[in-house]
Amino acid sequence: MSPPLTLWHRARLATLADGDWSLIDDGALLTQGAHITWVGRARELPRGLAIEREYDLGGALVTPGLVDCHTHLVYAGCRATEAALRLSGASYEQIARAGGGIRSTVAATRAASEEALLQLAVQRARTLRSQGVTTLEIKSGYGLDLPTEARCLRVARRVQATLGMSVRTTYLGAHAVPPEFEGRRDDYIEAVCEWLPILHAQGLVDAVDAFCEHVAFTPAQIGRVFATARRLGLPVKLHAEQLSHQGGAALAASFSALSCDHLEYLDPAGIEAMRRAATVAVLLPGAYYLLRETRRPPVAALREAGVPIAVATDHNPGTSPTLSLPLMAHMACVLFGLTPLEAVLGITRHAARALGLHDRGCLAVGQRADLAVWALDHPNELCYWFGHLQPERVVIAGEVVA
Amino acid sequence: MSPPLTLWHRARLATLADGDWSLIDDGALLTQGAHITWVGRARELPRGLAIEREYDLGGALVTPGLVDCHTHLVYAGCRATEAALRLSGASYEQIARAGGGIRSTVAATRAASEEALLQLAVQRARTLRSQGVTTLEIKSGYGLDLPTEARCLRVARRVQATLGMSVRTTYLGAHAVPPEFEGRRDDYIEAVCEWLPILHAQGLVDAVDAFCEHVAFTPAQIGRVFATARRLGLPVKLHAEQLSHQGGAALAASFSALSCDHLEYLDPAGIEAMRRAATVAVLLPGAYYLLRETRRPPVAALREAGVPIAVATDHNPGTSPTLSLPLMAHMACVLFGLTPLEAVLGITRHAARALGLHDRGCLAVGQRADLAVWALDHPNELCYWFGHLQPERVVIAGEVVA
Ligand SMILES: [Zn+2]
Ligand SMILES: [Zn+2]
Repeated sequence: MSPPLTLWHRARLATLADGDWSLIDDGALLTQGAHITWVGRARELPRGLAIEREYDLGGALVTPGLVDCHTHLVYAGCRATEAALRLSGASYEQIARAGGGIRSTVAATRAASEEALLQLAVQRARTLRSQGVTTLEIKSGYGLDLPTEARCLRVARRVQATLGMSVRTTYLGAHAVPPEFEGRRDDYIEAVCEWLPILHAQGLVDAVDAFCEHVAFTPAQIGRVFATARRLGLPVKLHAEQLSHQGGAALAASFSALSCDHLEYLDPAGIEAMRRAATVAVLLPGAYYLLRETRRPPVAALREAGVPIAVATDHNPGTSPTLSLPLMAHMACVLFGLTPLEAVLGITRHAARALGLHDRGCLAVGQRADLAVWALDHPNELCYWFGHLQPERVVIAGEVVA
Repeated sequence: MSPPLTLWHRARLATLADGDWSLIDDGALLTQGAHITWVGRARELPRGLAIEREYDLGGALVTPGLVDCHTHLVYAGCRATEAALRLSGASYEQIARAGGGIRSTVAATRAASEEALLQLAVQRARTLRSQGVTTLEIKSGYGLDLPTEARCLRVARRVQATLGMSVRTTYLGAHAVPPEFEGRRDDYIEAVCEWLPILHAQGLVDAVDAFCEHVAFTPAQIGRVFATARRLGLPVKLHAEQLSHQGGAALAASFSALSCDHLEYLDPAGIEAMRRAATVAVLLPGAYYLLRETRRPPVAALREAGVPIAVATDHNPGTSPTLSLPLMAHMACVLFGLTPLEAVLGITRHAARALGLHDRGCLAVGQRADLAVWALDHPNELCYWFGHLQPERVVIAGEVVA
């Protein structure tokens, strides 16, 4: 029995099909199973179809399901008290050097069972979904030893199985130096390179990430991790040029990285390298906002170079404890100067590209039937209202899930 | 028949009773009708009470219901396109001078029926409520003629009747110069002073507000409005020192204003005047964020002077289209440097004071049984997570409403 042919009508579609809004008023969609089989004006719907299910969307706005292409969703422990400290003036680096920061999350994550981690991650992913997200990336990086990294990546896989959202996993072993490797960064990098093939053999790794920063790892160290990924045929991405210029973006581009993320200190050479490698620039305004940064990523130069720009939550307990991708789009406009169209492309089409996915991010025949339905008149409003925006309905693979 | 004696237990209470968190773990509350009749540790609950209803809160955090003490909730028309323009570089003042801004909202509001305005305002207030707000202030100021201002204030009263939230109405005739008074600001102020007693006689006005700014009205003009309010026995408040220093705060304090709001350009003389008048400083980080302002209100000086600080959404279609008071508390911490405790007091206890209300804003015997129930461990988390925070339950006058 084939899945039911389903009609979604009385919709205003922001198809994003041509790199602009590509609005269709009085639009309709046909889906069958997980895919879109027809998109257009309701009045041009082919006659004589055996439509088995019908959703009247009452004139609502339909966008592609949102794609959160950068999250650190699997961790235990709460850092609200540390955040309160930071608000009283302590810097991210000061907290990191004082043994707080990532390390406290690592300790709590190592101590947590797989079921406990799953419950926390599912709750977070469900909140993301309630805000319109249908595909998300989940990084490891709070285990920093082989068993805990494996546990976190298994939890990421199980989030997909539990909620139906598409999850892409990323091994971020080179996130921070774990306490047992204190003062032995190169040795830790060697361990990361040994563990990667093991995790990959367990089917846990879709991509490989690292944190290139003076408080984390050097380009040379990251190059070793990336070379290992390349031997395994795994795509790479990088936390690059966030707090200082390190040349990470050019390095990542030389490995044909899917994306470089953060990029406040990206320079023209890095932009040119990303352009040539077709690497996506992922902007993370949540961390920029929370850390009260003042240096913005070079949006005008990225735009001029034609580098695709994505926007993500960077959900993590230290620098971006948000689960609202629409708010990130808003902040990308207000804080970084993106236009609403750029920001919405950044949480749909370009975010999918940042994950290497070409089957989602716009409303077109053959694309995934992942939809967000909004009680809004125009997609500009997605970057206008802020703090409370939620879709009326979320559809994954042709089924209403929220 | 008296209302049922109701027990709320298995709660962590952030009572805010002594100007700090005043946390009670394993806490319990008794309510009867609209008020709290007992607060304390569950184990100290008096024996032998005839408890008629019981809510097991499962260990959740309970705070007082939130108070949004500054909103412009009643208006028609959408300004998302204008916002998209502003994102491309046009300033608030440029838009105002080009006839956009407030004027487009005034035109749409004048053209809207009372029922249409009510529907829009109820939808917005319901969203605020879903974010924990149980009391809100609603200003007029998008009518700017007598019939439309009256209509908007009636709508504000009807929001209370429809949703059960407590609504305080504010007449903001001196918000902007309407087109029919173009170039005749003093004449318009005279009209405002004539209309105020008429609106008051209809029972529509709880307080009087004005906008003191070079794009709006001078202290001298506002003094005439405030003098009229004083003759009627109505409290005043002021949009003051937002875009420039005008001396509005000192003026308002000289009329014993309930609050001065915005305050980015507040000077020491204004702080001293507010301190002496016990005027609340209402900070509005949403507009600050959206307008990409860089000058912060003088939080340290306000703190040192002991001026109570509140935080509000300033919900309005031009400069703060947000309906999330928790996000405003977060932004007050991140952008203005409030501590989480200050920010939470700012959306509860001090916000109530900014409305002249002393029967709400903390959990104590005799206070209103307005509660927000959060799936959080510690109230610090209210200013930690951002963009997605929503209470599990909202209680107004002892009844669960959301
Ligand atoms: Zn990250
Ligand atoms: Zn205002």
